[in-house]
Amino acid sequence: MSNSFGELFRITTWGESHGGGVGVVIDGCPPRLELTEADIQPDLDRRRPGQSSIVTPRKESDTVQILSGTFEGKTIGTPISMMVKNEDMRPEAYSEMASKYRPSHADYTYVAKYGIRNWQGGGRTSARETIGRVAAGAVAKKILKLSFGVEVLAFVSQVKEIKATVDPATVQFSEVESNIVRCPDAAAAQKMIELIESMRAKGDSVGGIVECVIRNAPPGWGEPVFDRLEADLAKAMLSLPATKGFEIGSGFSSIYLTGTEHNDPFRMIDGKVRTTTNRSGGIQGGISNGELIHFRVPFKPVATVMHEQETVDVENKNTTLKGRGRHDPCVLPRAVPMVEAMAALVLVDHALRQKAQCL
Amino acid sequence: MSNSFGELFRITTWGESHGGGVGVVIDGCPPRLELTEADIQPDLDRRRPGQSSIVTPRKESDTVQILSGTFEGKTIGTPISMMVKNEDMRPEAYSEMASKYRPSHADYTYVAKYGIRNWQGGGRTSARETIGRVAAGAVAKKILKLSFGVEVLAFVSQVKEIKATVDPATVQFSEVESNIVRCPDAAAAQKMIELIESMRAKGDSVGGIVECVIRNAPPGWGEPVFDRLEADLAKAMLSLPATKGFEIGSGFSSIYLTGTEHNDPFRMIDGKVRTTTNRSGGIQGGISNGELIHFRVPFKPVATVMHEQETVDVENKNTTLKGRGRHDPCVLPRAVPMVEAMAALVLVDHALRQKAQCL
Amino acid sequence: MSNSFGELFRITTWGESHGGGVGVVIDGCPPRLELTEADIQPDLDRRRPGQSSIVTPRKESDTVQILSGTFEGKTIGTPISMMVKNEDMRPEAYSEMASKYRPSHADYTYVAKYGIRNWQGGGRTSARETIGRVAAGAVAKKILKLSFGVEVLAFVSQVKEIKATVDPATVQFSEVESNIVRCPDAAAAQKMIELIESMRAKGDSVGGIVECVIRNAPPGWGEPVFDRLEADLAKAMLSLPATKGFEIGSGFSSIYLTGTEHNDPFRMIDGKVRTTTNRSGGIQGGISNGELIHFRVPFKPVATVMHEQETVDVENKNTTLKGRGRHDPCVLPRAVPMVEAMAALVLVDHALRQKAQCL
Amino acid sequence: MSNSFGELFRITTWGESHGGGVGVVIDGCPPRLELTEADIQPDLDRRRPGQSSIVTPRKESDTVQILSGTFEGKTIGTPISMMVKNEDMRPEAYSEMASKYRPSHADYTYVAKYGIRNWQGGGRTSARETIGRVAAGAVAKKILKLSFGVEVLAFVSQVKEIKATVDPATVQFSEVESNIVRCPDAAAAQKMIELIESMRAKGDSVGGIVECVIRNAPPGWGEPVFDRLEADLAKAMLSLPATKGFEIGSGFSSIYLTGTEHNDPFRMIDGKVRTTTNRSGGIQGGISNGELIHFRVPFKPVATVMHEQETVDVENKNTTLKGRGRHDPCVLPRAVPMVEAMAALVLVDHALRQKAQCL
Repeated sequence: MSNSFGELFRITTWGESHGGGVGVVIDGCPPRLELTEADIQPDLDRRRPGQSSIVTPRKESDTVQILSGTFEGKTIGTPISMMVKNEDMRPEAYSEMASKYRPSHADYTYVAKYGIRNWQGGGRTSARETIGRVAAGAVAKKILKLSFGVEVLAFVSQVKEIKATVDPATVQFSEVESNIVRCPDAAAAQKMIELIESMRAKGDSVGGIVECVIRNAPPGWGEPVFDRLEADLAKAMLSLPATKGFEIGSGFSSIYLTGTEHNDPFRMIDGKVRTTTNRSGGIQGGISNGELIHFRVPFKPVATVMHEQETVDVENKNTTLKGRGRHDPCVLPRAVPMVEAMAALVLVDHALRQKAQCL
Repeated sequence: MSNSFGELFRITTWGESHGGGVGVVIDGCPPRLELTEADIQPDLDRRRPGQSSIVTPRKESDTVQILSGTFEGKTIGTPISMMVKNEDMRPEAYSEMASKYRPSHADYTYVAKYGIRNWQGGGRTSARETIGRVAAGAVAKKILKLSFGVEVLAFVSQVKEIKATVDPATVQFSEVESNIVRCPDAAAAQKMIELIESMRAKGDSVGGIVECVIRNAPPGWGEPVFDRLEADLAKAMLSLPATKGFEIGSGFSSIYLTGTEHNDPFRMIDGKVRTTTNRSGGIQGGISNGELIHFRVPFKPVATVMHEQETVDVENKNTTLKGRGRHDPCVLPRAVPMVEAMAALVLVDHALRQKAQCL
Repeated sequence: MSNSFGELFRITTWGESHGGGVGVVIDGCPPRLELTEADIQPDLDRRRPGQSSIVTPRKESDTVQILSGTFEGKTIGTPISMMVKNEDMRPEAYSEMASKYRPSHADYTYVAKYGIRNWQGGGRTSARETIGRVAAGAVAKKILKLSFGVEVLAFVSQVKEIKATVDPATVQFSEVESNIVRCPDAAAAQKMIELIESMRAKGDSVGGIVECVIRNAPPGWGEPVFDRLEADLAKAMLSLPATKGFEIGSGFSSIYLTGTEHNDPFRMIDGKVRTTTNRSGGIQGGISNGELIHFRVPFKPVATVMHEQETVDVENKNTTLKGRGRHDPCVLPRAVPMVEAMAALVLVDHALRQKAQCL
Repeated sequence: MSNSFGELFRITTWGESHGGGVGVVIDGCPPRLELTEADIQPDLDRRRPGQSSIVTPRKESDTVQILSGTFEGKTIGTPISMMVKNEDMRPEAYSEMASKYRPSHADYTYVAKYGIRNWQGGGRTSARETIGRVAAGAVAKKILKLSFGVEVLAFVSQVKEIKATVDPATVQFSEVESNIVRCPDAAAAQKMIELIESMRAKGDSVGGIVECVIRNAPPGWGEPVFDRLEADLAKAMLSLPATKGFEIGSGFSSIYLTGTEHNDPFRMIDGKVRTTTNRSGGIQGGISNGELIHFRVPFKPVATVMHEQETVDVENKNTTLKGRGRHDPCVLPRAVPMVEAMAALVLVDHALRQKAQCL
C-alpha cells in the first residue's frame, strides 16, 4: 500500500512491467458519462514508448480494454476496470539486474522494504505503472471538460539548460503536440530535440521541467486544512517516478519579493472577483480562486545510462553495472500526459468533494 | 474536510483563532509511551507568537492540556486529545475584515467555498490552526526518537536573498536554537534578523526557505506507488500556510546534470549499502534508502502588510485595505517547528505502515 | 484506531470516563447550518446517567460546549469540536478493578491488546464514550430533518421476555418519551419498568431490543457493494457497547418464508414506485428504496452485577469479584439516543456521498 | 463507491455479470507469501454455479488468473490483480428485465441511484460480484493459517425450518464438504437437500442460516471504538447479497438471560486466561479474547422465482413479471465460501492493524 489515489474519484493501479499486464480500477466515476476506449487511447498513445526517436524504444502498442463499468457506451456508476496487456517482455535483458542494484533506481529500496523484488524490467517501479494513471486521467479530463469546462494542459518548458518561452495563459494543446518533445516554443523544442538526440548517442540522459496549467477551475475547490488543492497536487506530482519537486504560482521565487510586492490585488473584472496578478497560482488558502492554476515539476535525468557505474550486488559486494539494451534519453515527452493525468485526477476528486458538502 | 492527516498515526485538528480554542486528536498513537504536557510544550513555545522581536506580537501563552489518552503518564492506545485555549482575542481589530477580502489571504476563497466565514483573525486559516499539528508532531518526534532513533531537524536556510551556509549532515538542534531566526549560520542569522527588523519597521514582510533533515531513517519506509515518502512529505509541506513549493535532494537543480552525473553510486560502507552521493535525498522509488532525508520548502512573505492595497469587498465592489494592529514581518522562525511537526507525522505514519506489512 | 466513523460526515470521538472529559470532532458538516448547544443538549440529556430510577445513578450533568466550527450561530464548514467535562469521577470506587478483570467487560482484552489500561470506571470502554456519538448524532439528525425531511426514531421494543406492540409506521417521538423506559407501548412499558426495578433490587441486570425506524429516506442512498446502507447500519450498531446483533426488515425470520412469499411486490402508489410489503426493510441491493427503513438491535444485560463472580486477576490468578457502588440494571433507555445517533450518522454520510456522485 | 473493503489488507472488486469479466485487486498483501492460482481456485469452485443439483445451473468455469503481484510463485508486496472471465452470458435471457424491475432485487434502486443500469443478468448486483471477494478471501485465509494458525470455517446450519445440530467447537472442514448443501449434520443435510430440490421443482426458493467459526484468533485483534471486530464482521456479512442480519455469541437470545446468568466467568486454564462459557462469542469490548469467534448470518430466500409477480416497469406502470431460464432455489451452499472469505478479510486486516500499533 498504497496503490490507490483519490477520495471520491478513487483509482487503484496494479501491474508490473513483466507479468500479465497493467491496469487500473476507477471507483466513484459518476454514472451516465459517455465512455469508450476511444476516450482513453489517445492519452495512452502520448505516453507510449516508441512514439518518437527521443524516447525509449520499447515496443508496446498499449491497447486499452475497458472490462467493466460501462453499458451501451455509458458509465453506470460501478467500478471501471481497464487493462493493457504486456507485450514486449524480455526478461533475459534484465538478467544482470537479478543480482545487482541499479544506481538511483528503486531496486535496493524495494528489497529493503519487501525482502523480494521482481527484477524484470523494474517490476512495479517501471514507468509502465503509469499506464493505469494515464487511462484514469483520461476519464477525469473528460469529466472536467464536459461537466465543468475545465481544461488541463501540460507541456515541457525546460530541458537541461534550454528554456522555452511560453505564455501559460494562452498556450494551446495543438502547440504542445506540434513536436515530439511536447514543448510549445518551436525554436526551443528544436534545440531540446537535438540535445536529447545527442544524449541518446552518448548513452546518457537529461531531465527538465514539465509545466501544467488548469483553466476555468471555479472558485471553491480544495479542502482545507490538509487536503489543500496545492497539497494534493504536490503529492500527485511527487508520486510520479523521477520527480524531485513541485512549485505553484510564484513558487521558490516568491521569496525574493516582499509581502507588498508579492500580494495579488483583488479587482472586479467583468463582474467577477479577480486578481490582477497571479502569484498565488490560482489557489489561496488551499482553495481555487478562479484564476489560472499553474505549477511546475522537475524531472531528474533518467537513471538508466549506457555507462559503467559503481554499485552493489544482492550479496552486498561492491561491483559495477552498465545499462544495456533499450535506452531512454529523456522521459519528459512521455511525462506530459502523466502530469496531466495526475492533475486531472486531483481536480475531479475535489470537484466531487465540493459537491458533497453543499446541501 | 479534510482536517485529518495520516493513515495509521492519524491526527485531526480543530479550532479557529477566535473561539473556544484550538486542538488536535491523535488516533493511533502506540500505547505505553511516556507522555505528559512537558513533552509537548517546548515545541509549542517555539511556535508561539511573541517569542521574539521578529515575529507576530500576538499574546498567547499557548499552554497545552492533554484531555485524554494517557493514564499515569503513559499513552494507553486511546485517542489523545490536546487543547490550547484562545486568550488574545480581539475581534474588534478585525472588524474591517468582515466586509473586505484581504489580498493573498483565503478570505475570498472561503466565502466562495463555504458561503460563510469567520472573519475574526482569519478563523480557521489563521496560523493558530498549526498548534494542533505542532502538538501532535511533538508526540511523533518522541516516538521516532525513542523507538527508531530518528531525528527530525528543520532550520531557516534563506531569508529573501540572504543565504546561510549549513552542512545538513552535521547541523545540530542547539545551533538552530541559538538565535531567534532559527538559522544555524550565525553570520547569516544576524543579517536575516536585521532584514526582518527593517521589514517590521517598514510594515512589510519577507519570506524564505526552511530546510529539513531527517537522520537515521532506516531503509524501507514509504509506500509506493502513491504514498511515496517524498509524495507524502510534499503534501505535508504544501498543507502548511504560506508554502509555495517543495524539493527533495537535488530538487529543481537536478535538471542541470546528465543521468551519469546525477546518479548516486552504491558502495558498501561499514557493512551497509550506502550511496556515495545523495542527490536522491534519502529516498529512491518512494522508499527511504538509509541516507539523510533532506528537503527544502519556500515560504512566501506574510500577506498582511501595513500598506494600503487594492481589494474587493463582500458586496463585490472595488476598495482598498490597509493592515492594522499586530504585524508579522516573517513567519520563518515559527515555521521551523511546523515543518518538523509535519515531517515527523509523515515519518511515524510510514514507520507504523511498514510494521503492518511484515508478518 | 479507529476512533473515527463516516466517510464524508466524519466524526472522531475521544475521552475516557476518568480524565479531562469526553468529546467529538465532526469533520465534513455542511456550512450555514444553524447550530448551538441547544441543538445538542436534549439528546445528551436522554443519554445521561441519573435521568430516572431505572438507569445508572452516576451524577453527571453532561453539559456540552461547542468549541469550534460555528460563527454567529451557524456552522462554517470547519471542524466542529464539542466537549463534555467529566464531573463524577470516583477512582477509588474502582480500585479493585486495578487488579482484577471484570467478567464480560473489556478489561482483559484491552490489556491483551494494548498492554496497559485505564482501569478507572472502564476508561475508554465506559458508556461515557458514546457522549461524543450522541452529540454528533444530534447534528446529523438536524441536517437530515432540515435538508431532507428524514426522521430517525428509536424505541425499546423488548426487555427480557416483555415484548411491546408497536406500529413502526406510525410510532411518534412523544410516545417514546412518555415513559422512562422509552417504550411507546404504555402497558408493556409499565411491566418493563417493574422488571428493571426488581433487577435493581436484586443487584442484577437485563437486556432487550432497541428498534429503529427511519422515515422519508429518499430512494438512492447507499453505496454498493461494500458500503451498502444496511452494512453500514450494522457496523454502526455493533460498534455500540453491549450490542450482540442486528437485523433489518424480515431479518432472521426471513428464512421461514419461500422466495415467492418473501418478495416485496412493486406497485405504483400516488405516482411513486412503492412496495406493498416491506420485508426488505427499506433497502434493496444496499440502496434505500423509499420505504420505511426498519431494523432491530439486541443489547445484552449489563455486565456489572452486584454478585460475586469468578474471574482472574492481572497476575493471572483465579479470584472472585463483586460489583460495588453504582449499579446500572438496564442500558436500554439510554441506548435509544445512541441508536438514533449512529443511524443518523450513517444516513447523513450516505446523503452526502450520494450528492458527490451526481454531476 | 465503495467497491473497496479493508484498511491495510484492502480489496477492490470490479465487474458485472455481463461484460469482460469480474476481478479483484488486493492492496497490502504482505510480501514473500507463496501464492499461485492453485491457492485460489478451490474456493472459487465452492462458490461456482452449477456445482451441484441444488444451486443455479449457470455454466461458468470461473477460472482465476493472477495478473500481477507475484514473482516466481511468491507475493512481492505489490497489488495482486486477479480476474475471472465471463463465459455464460445470455443477455437475451434478460431482455424482459430491460423494461421491468424484478421484485426484491436491486433493479429499481440502482436506477433510483445511478439513473442507469446494466440490466443483463443483474449487472453489478449479480452474485458474480462475489468472485473477487472469494478470490481475495482465499489469500486472506492462507495468511491467517500460515502466519497465525487461525482457521475460518463456515457451514449451513439451517434451511427454512430444518435445523442442524453442530458443535461449533469441533466441526471440521471435511464434514462441511461431505455433502452438497455444506451442512455438517448429515441427517439434517439430507432433509435440506430434499427441501431445496422440492423448491426447485416448484420454481420457488428458500433461505437459511450460515454459521461461521474462527479458531485460534489470538487475544488483541479489533480496533475500538468503531472498528470493533464484531462491527467489522457485521458490516462484512451485511455487505453480502441476500443477508438480513448478524448475531455473534449469544446474539438475539442474550436478552433472555440476566447479567449474572449471561456473564462469561474468567478462569486460568492451561496457563491461559480463558472464559468458561462463551456468550461473548470470542470478542469483548470489540477485541478478540482468545475464545472461539462464532457468529450467524441469515440469508433470505433467493428473489428470482418462476412465478408471476406484481411489479412496475421502467415507465412507472404496473405490470407483472415471471422469472425465466436458470433458477437458483437456494444460495446457501455457495454462500458458505462467501462468508468465510469476508470473515477472513476482516481478520487478516485486523491482524495487520494490530501489528501496526506495536512498537
